[in-house]
Amino acid sequence: MKEVPDMNEILESHARIRPYIHNTPVLTSTFLDNLADGKIFLKCENFQKAGAFKSRGACNTVFLMTDEEACRGVATHSSGNHAAALARAASLRGIPCHVVMPSNSAAVKIEATRFYGGLVTFCEPVLAARESTLEEVISQTGAIEVHSYNDPRIIAGQATAALELVTNFPDLDIVMAPVGGGGLLSGTALSVKYFSPDTRVFGAEPAQADDAFRSFQSRTFIRSEKPDTIADGLRTSLGSITFRIIVDEVDGILTVTEESIIQAMLIIWERMKIIIEPSSAVPVAALLTYPELFRKKRTGIIISGGNVDLRDLPWK
Amino acid sequence: MKEVPDMNEILESHARIRPYIHNTPVLTSTFLDNLADGKIFLKCENFQKAGAFKSRGACNTVFLMTDEEACRGVATHSSGNHAAALARAASLRGIPCHVVMPSNSAAVKIEATRFYGGLVTFCEPVLAARESTLEEVISQTGAIEVHSYNDPRIIAGQATAALELVTNFPDLDIVMAPVGGGGLLSGTALSVKYFSPDTRVFGAEPAQADDAFRSFQSRTFIRSEKPDTIADGLRTSLGSITFRIIVDEVDGILTVTEESIIQAMLIIWERMKIIIEPSSAVPVAALLTYPELFRKKRTGIIISGGNVDLRDLPWK
Repeated sequence: MKEVPDMNEILESHARIRPYIHNTPVLTSTFLDNLADGKIFLKCENFQKAGAFKSRGACNTVFLMTDEEACRGVATHSSGNHAAALARAASLRGIPCHVVMPSNSAAVKIEATRFYGGLVTFCEPVLAARESTLEEVISQTGAIEVHSYNDPRIIAGQATAALELVTNFPDLDIVMAPVGGGGLLSGTALSVKYFSPDTRVFGAEPAQADDAFRSFQSRTFIRSEKPDTIADGLRTSLGSITFRIIVDEVDGILTVTEESIIQAMLIIWERMKIIIEPSSAVPVAALLTYPELFRKKRTGIIISGGNVDLRDLPWK
Repeated sequence: MKEVPDMNEILESHARIRPYIHNTPVLTSTFLDNLADGKIFLKCENFQKAGAFKSRGACNTVFLMTDEEACRGVATHSSGNHAAALARAASLRGIPCHVVMPSNSAAVKIEATRFYGGLVTFCEPVLAARESTLEEVISQTGAIEVHSYNDPRIIAGQATAALELVTNFPDLDIVMAPVGGGGLLSGTALSVKYFSPDTRVFGAEPAQADDAFRSFQSRTFIRSEKPDTIADGLRTSLGSITFRIIVDEVDGILTVTEESIIQAMLIIWERMKIIIEPSSAVPVAALLTYPELFRKKRTGIIISGGNVDLRDLPWK
């Protein structure tokens, strides 16, 4: 696959993963429409297999492998949804999945990874330890690394969420997705470019983890420094590939406060009766923070996932 | 309308309320199917207008009124979902709605009632005070009382949830609904009898508020005594009409413990990413408490509502 997936590669990815993922529903809410003074469409990847859009990229990558590659197994480091999604994809293909998780990972994420058969190795909760431990695991097992976002197969997989959205709702003015490592946002931007070229694309990011915003503004790759946000899926920095696609194809990055993320999450839970994780609340927060951008517009939002520790909610 | 609504009255009720309610989605879950070793279909009234099935009966009753009746306004006593649903239905018809609420009602329920324009009068939190305060309000305003369950118009409205369910899934072995006052269960039983006669109907009830179970077993109307359950929608006793329909048409009442209700609620939140209230978790708890009844069966469950105080969850 090309470094920047083309239109056909995204369509082929969709056909490849379709047996293993949900074509998730798109929900609307009169309350949210009134709040935004526009029309809002939520693409609900919180209802996706393993609870997040990550199942798309993980399945695409695992099922793209040749039998020779696949039988070696896959490996990754992840504290979150990519771990569970990759473990699930690997078990569907019948191959082992090794996951390096920081020792302070949420119990629910560890449980979910093991539920899908992932073989977990713990390490110190710093990037250097994650990478060195993963190298060790790979040298011992011969498994193939599957990066959680900086990989065209992953990006093409994540792109299928927006593909489904714009196919079902062809007249959106805006599509918005959260941005962490940029796998979802870069894939979203490509699908919108190919399949709904008149639609604009925004990324939404916590102000306290704003590497994508600063990279985008300066057109320079800037690493995340001390990200400190409740949106645990968005603490990572962009990768080389996702950075390039986002700079080329995205119309803007909107940053939001922690308070607005919690408020947006609570609004969706209370009014729509669906469970979304803090990362998914970030674009909803952007909707409420920059009302002038969305007024009288038709806006699609990718709700990235629904994996939350229900015993540790931010509004207690 | 007859005391026991007939087939046509339920179909007419459905046509009457259709502009004002959602035909709610039916969700499935591989995890839940595996847990039950059967096929489970959740009719999601937590996504209903005002967050509960109560919108069906309230709209049916309000839109059945003549203009002469309607202009007097409506009144009820309720601590919960019926209050908000009736207020919403009244505001759709442009008439006043007076609601007597016990002074210890949950803040979210009071807010919701006022959000839809309900005029709230508080009273002591005992049934006698609710009834006497309601009498006062009615004598002052001339409003017409709309009982929350013991009324054929309400029952015919609530029946439309099961009507939609068995119309879309005509081959269910069992349909199950929670039972409090019995409006939902009696309506469900009638719709199943008329539109899917080979399907059995069970009610599910907290063991600590088991008046319906005892009434059903003894074929005698027994009032609820000191109900003490987290399922706040199920603390009321059956009414004369709902009792009669349930005894005649329901195949059994299953009781469950408080622990199983909380566990079932958590399973649905965690695995299906939807917010259901404790009352809705009661039939899910019955599924897990009496596995032999549901094994290899196709079971539809009416998920009654999703109005929960998110700041006061039972698993903290």
